[in-house]
Amino acid sequence: MNKSAFRKLSYGVYLISSLDGDRPTGCIANSAMQITSDPASIAISINHDNYTNSCIERTGKFAISILSENTDPGIIGTFGFQSGKNVNKFDSVSYKTVEGLPVIEDACAYIVCQVVNKMETDSHTVFLGKVLDADNLENAPAMTYSYYHTVVKGKSPKNAPTYLKEEETIPKTAYVCSVCGYVYEGETPFEELPDDWKCPICKQPKSVFKKQER
Amino acid sequence: MNKSAFRKLSYGVYLISSLDGDRPTGCIANSAMQITSDPASIAISINHDNYTNSCIERTGKFAISILSENTDPGIIGTFGFQSGKNVNKFDSVSYKTVEGLPVIEDACAYIVCQVVNKMETDSHTVFLGKVLDADNLENAPAMTYSYYHTVVKGKSPKNAPTYLKEEETIPKTAYVCSVCGYVYEGETPFEELPDDWKCPICKQPKSVFKKQER
Repeated sequence: MNKSAFRKLSYGVYLISSLDGDRPTGCIANSAMQITSDPASIAISINHDNYTNSCIERTGKFAISILSENTDPGIIGTFGFQSGKNVNKFDSVSYKTVEGLPVIEDACAYIVCQVVNKMETDSHTVFLGKVLDADNLENAPAMTYSYYHTVVKGKSPKNAPTYLKEEETIPKTAYVCSVCGYVYEGETPFEELPDDWKCPICKQPKSVFKKQER
Repeated sequence: MNKSAFRKLSYGVYLISSLDGDRPTGCIANSAMQITSDPASIAISINHDNYTNSCIERTGKFAISILSENTDPGIIGTFGFQSGKNVNKFDSVSYKTVEGLPVIEDACAYIVCQVVNKMETDSHTVFLGKVLDADNLENAPAMTYSYYHTVVKGKSPKNAPTYLKEEETIPKTAYVCSVCGYVYEGETPFEELPDDWKCPICKQPKSVFKKQER
């Protein structure tokens, strides 16, 4: 079996959000697909280890903010590489509330759903949601997972089903963010970057970068 | 609710195949996503009205051929706009057999799965398949649904969850294939095309095209 074939499946990049009591929380996922058209329903897949999973279980609702090519990649860092258990992720982004759930403004569309069914696996829950509301936001192409990898140069969080241990394609010497896996590829040598330089994906300081040789 | 927001979800274009007894059959779908990584599993969504749905039920297996940007769009016509009940769709394409299931050669990768769970909706079945085998084929980018719509100029079959009645963006006068919805946009006026001209998507003759005004 050649697992790299899985990489040919096409995905978007989504911020899946829900509520922890009254507190908005969410995570990044690439697995969402429309299942029925009338009434409309959408299936998403969320790792058990994502705090958002248990929040969706409790509230019975989730929202999908569809990231666009113009969305600040820092949002992927904030929502994809930290846990909502410890951090108020929505504190740093501008959002509005639709059907009681938070959706970010810096997205091309949103869809808010009520859970009507689910399917369990060893690591992920597939939630089926009936659409309660949906609308377009900014007029920009949706960010595809391929765009995120090739243009934004992002890596998969370890909870993503698409995460592959052997995915690394790091040059012989590279500075890699230990939080989100971003590989520094700027023209300025990494050592010469200013001390207040931050990872463009997860906004962590220069000090979390590790030099990798192989 | 603005249903056009659903169009911002990203998809690929897949040929989902199975067996009707010993006879290979299949259909086109855009909904497939990896759910777990180890062991790997993939979820697909298939309309009840697609003959492939009942074939997957009976054999307990399905294969995903991942179409590439180079895949002959005629394959989408053959597999997306005819029923496998009446037509041996695989007669017209070159394919090989993996784990007993047919996968087409004109694709960038394939994944063969055994059904381990399913979730029913009013119109579609979400099948969860444990991956039995997978490999890459031709080295070309996967065809995205967006590429199919904007470059190949294809429409959604009526069984697709993404099908929207109001999706039409046809110019004032247009010749539209009554089988697959392809809108003729060639430089030669439609009336002057040779009699043996065929729809590039579904290979139906010129006579099935209808002149539409609006």
